[in-house]
Amino acid sequence: MWFQKQISLNAKSRGFHLITNEILQTISGIKNIKIGLLHIFIKHTSASLTINEDADPTVRQDFESHFNQAVPENAPFYKHTFEGTDDMPAHLKASILDSSLCIPITDGKLNMGTWQGIYLCEHRNHGGSRKLLLTMQGEN
Amino acid sequence: MWFQKQISLNAKSRGFHLITNEILQTISGIKNIKIGLLHIFIKHTSASLTINEDADPTVRQDFESHFNQAVPENAPFYKHTFEGTDDMPAHLKASILDSSLCIPITDGKLNMGTWQGIYLCEHRNHGGSRKLLLTMQGEN
Amino acid sequence: MWFQKQISLNAKSRGFHLITNEILQTISGIKNIKIGLLHIFIKHTSASLTINEDADPTVRQDFESHFNQAVPENAPFYKHTFEGTDDMPAHLKASILDSSLCIPITDGKLNMGTWQGIYLCEHRNHGGSRKLLLTMQGEN
Repeated sequence: MWFQKQISLNAKSRGFHLITNEILQTISGIKNIKIGLLHIFIKHTSASLTINEDADPTVRQDFESHFNQAVPENAPFYKHTFEGTDDMPAHLKASILDSSLCIPITDGKLNMGTWQGIYLCEHRNHGGSRKLLLTMQGEN
Repeated sequence: MWFQKQISLNAKSRGFHLITNEILQTISGIKNIKIGLLHIFIKHTSASLTINEDADPTVRQDFESHFNQAVPENAPFYKHTFEGTDDMPAHLKASILDSSLCIPITDGKLNMGTWQGIYLCEHRNHGGSRKLLLTMQGEN
Repeated sequence: MWFQKQISLNAKSRGFHLITNEILQTISGIKNIKIGLLHIFIKHTSASLTINEDADPTVRQDFESHFNQAVPENAPFYKHTFEGTDDMPAHLKASILDSSLCIPITDGKLNMGTWQGIYLCEHRNHGGSRKLLLTMQGEN
């Protein structure tokens, strides 16, 4: 049993954003899957996906601070600079984090831990709308 | 053909630990799968999973040293500090590494390279027992 | 519907290399899959896989520069040094990036974004040929 759907997320500010509910709203068919997997793929190279703590918003602020410091703009060795100072760091952050997630499904629901949520990591200053491709499979 | 099982690993000290054998002991059904995939998901946001060299234990010690230096405790910009100085670095390390792995199965066995092993990456000082959700699928 | 194949890539120089076409040439059966997933697994611990911008080659050069600076050779705390100064950084880079990718298939093709390509990340000075295990599944 396979299901696939492309969705577009509204443009988000640079930073880390919880999108668990936006994802869940688009996969109502999940309720029919007893055991399965949800694969989420982002079709961009300057934004990414990760799973982390969904309770305290300062965690997401600290993610933005950490990655800005670990992957700085204007590193003297960057050659790919013509799309702006935020572009090359965005590509690097996207690969350090992830372009896809795979989340288990059990009895019709995502089976994540109590504090886990899905983050959209927007690494550009003006990234615009982002396209996600959702692929769900499993057995009834 | 789908199989899913949640397991709990005994509490481990902060650092990187080989868990390949602990995983294999819980998935005896793997012997019936000709081609497939094993998905391993950690239901926590301050511990993670990765695959790396399983032979020399100093590799795992160097992982701990590197990540402590690359993601330090007490960074001046951290706002999420009330759960201890090891907490925010643990969240960051978990996203830099991975919350899940997907490993190919061939002829009833995990088909990894000669030197590859599965690491449980415990980023907290006292993380306690960790829950993994194993989802296996494939064809006979 | 499952398909699995091991391939060997020719030895590549240290750095980041586009391998999208090399992958596509080995999975002609993809044209029969309406919805599915391609899993690519690298059977090594000092080379890795990621998805990023496939247009401008300076992006890949900046990847090499960034990771050399973020994960330096000769860090004073490394204990695993007997395989050369490029070895321990290679293990770390492999886990920061990824040992596997999972890419959606739609209507017989990989469904990636316009600018996305598959990178082989060679972290050793003389890594030699690298083995990839491709596992493809889906429905007609």
